Formats: sequence, C-alpha cells, structure tokens
Amino acid sequence: MRGRMEKLREPLSCVASCGLPLALEVMGERWSFMILRAAFNGVRHFEEFLEELGIARNILSNRLARLVEGGILEREHCSDDRRRIEYCLTSKGHDLLPAMLALRQWGEKWALGVPCNPVLCDARDGLPIAQITIRAHDDRIVKPGELIWRDRATIVEDQPETPLRAVI
Amino acid sequence: MRGRMEKLREPLSCVASCGLPLALEVMGERWSFMILRAAFNGVRHFEEFLEELGIARNILSNRLARLVEGGILEREHCSDDRRRIEYCLTSKGHDLLPAMLALRQWGEKWALGVPCNPVLCDARDGLPIAQITIRAHDDRIVKPGELIWRDRATIVEDQPETPLRAVI
Repeated sequence: MRGRMEKLREPLSCVASCGLPLALEVMGERWSFMILRAAFNGVRHFEEFLEELGIARNILSNRLARLVEGGILEREHCSDDRRRIEYCLTSKGHDLLPAMLALRQWGEKWALGVPCNPVLCDARDGLPIAQITIRAHDDRIVKPGELIWRDRATIVEDQPETPLRAVI
Repeated sequence: MRGRMEKLREPLSCVASCGLPLALEVMGERWSFMILRAAFNGVRHFEEFLEELGIARNILSNRLARLVEGGILEREHCSDDRRRIEYCLTSKGHDLLPAMLALRQWGEKWALGVPCNPVLCDARDGLPIAQITIRAHDDRIVKPGELIWRDRATIVEDQPETPLRAVI
C-alpha cells in the first residue's frame, strides 16, 4: 500500500476534512458506546438503560442528551403510554452498525482470544454473519494493497458513481 | 430489530466479553488515531510522523510505544539504513482498515456535509470503493432488521462456519 498511497495523501495534520474523527466522537466515549450498543439491542427507556448498564443517572441523562443532539437517537412518545419517552435510533444512528460490527469483529479476532457469545447471525438462515470487508463498486473484495487515493476532480464523470447500497 | 434482538441480548453491562471497546481503546484516542491514519498513508519514520502530524515529540513517542505494545505497529530496521527505525503496521494493525473505513464513510455521509477529497479508490479500475455493508455467510447483504443473536451452543455443528475472507 505504501508505494501507491504515497503519491497522493490525505492532509494528515488536518482532521476537519476526514469523517473518521467525527464518528469516533460519537462512539469513542465509553458510556456513549454502551448506550448505543444497548439501543441496538432494543433498549428504549431511561429506566431500562439505567438498570441494564449500571450507569449513574446523571451520566446517562447527559450522554442521552448528547446522542439526541448529535442526531443519533431521537426522543419519541411511547405508543402505548404517551407520557413515557422512548429513545430510538435514527437513520444516522442505525447507519453506525457496519462500523460497530467491524470494530467488534476486529476485537474478537485480535484482542479477546475467545469466541464471543451470543453470536450475531442472519435471521434468514441462522448462520453467523461474515467478516466485514472492503468492496469495489462492483462488489469485488478489495485488499488494502489495492487501494489508491484519487483527487475527486480526476475521476472522470462518465464513470458510474459508487452505488450507495440501501442498508437501513 | 427490536423484537428479534430482545429475545437474546448481549450482557449489556459487561464490556469484557465484547470486542468493540478493545478496538475503541486502540483507535479512540485522537493522536493514536492520527498516527494510525498516517501509517495507513505510508508514513513510517518518527521524524516523518512528527512533521506530518504537527504532534509534540513526547506525545508521539508515547503513542507509538503504546501502538507497538498493543501489537498494532512494529519497530523494524530500515532496509537501506539499518540505524533507522521504521514503524510498520502489523497484520493486526492492517486488519483495522475495514472498521476505519466504515467509520470514515459514516462521517462523510452524516457529519461532514461535503464530499471528501481525496477519494479512496480501487487501484484496478480507479473507481471509488463502495459503502461498507454487513454480509451473510453467503455474501448477501444483511439489513440491521435481519440480524439476530444466537447462543453459540445452538448453532448446529454441521452448518458451515462463517468463511473468514482473506483481506490482508
């Protein structure tokens, strides 16, 4: 990868134009991550987060507000009891799942040393999901050594844009 | 996802058995992330990290030592000058790329509001890579609502294991 990538580089001292630090701000803080993980597991109510996570009330309140402000969760009135508030993942929040699973798989493979349980499976056949991979526009798996940076202006316009697959 | 996932949940108050926090420990700290990003862009030498990142010498030294200790980078003698040390990504380090790109794509899509430049492309045809998606064992795209947790013991043994695709 080195040879190819050295030709053109990201502005390495600048993080403003890179989407990654923004994502880490949302997920990088320990409690925010645990709240997010609980939300992906179907937890919706303040008291339920409190009980499930063993988190202090004021910290939970603070982190939920931050996640709502960041557009990751939204406050909704519970359909069967309008006085109760539910915290639901937005589309922006749901869209963090591939990144969360890729990080999780990395941790399982390299750091935990034991197979995780329970196992995340495809509901259609009950089999474990695959490792998350990098794909070309036509779905081929791209290895890290096959990646190059290109100036946006040099990508000719008659070539098809990357299809944004609907995953939500 | 809620209905299905509520049947079986991860132990939500426990992070010891989840690979995700381990991955966030490596990437979550701002300077560690910037060093990693530079390493993926082909930066290898201490002085080069120093210059490219605008990082203080003692912080760089500390974070490089941590990344070496965590098995993400390794110190090697430079082939053309044995007195010089190179910091190279290990297999464990390289394997963070799908997670880094998934986070980056999320940030580009939801938080930046402007298309990133330069663009990460497939060297074989020069076209931008696709959005990173969650796949079933047979490569179908799995939507978040199609995911279930299963107890490892209930996944019958004659079913094929998830193929671990070689991406390194």
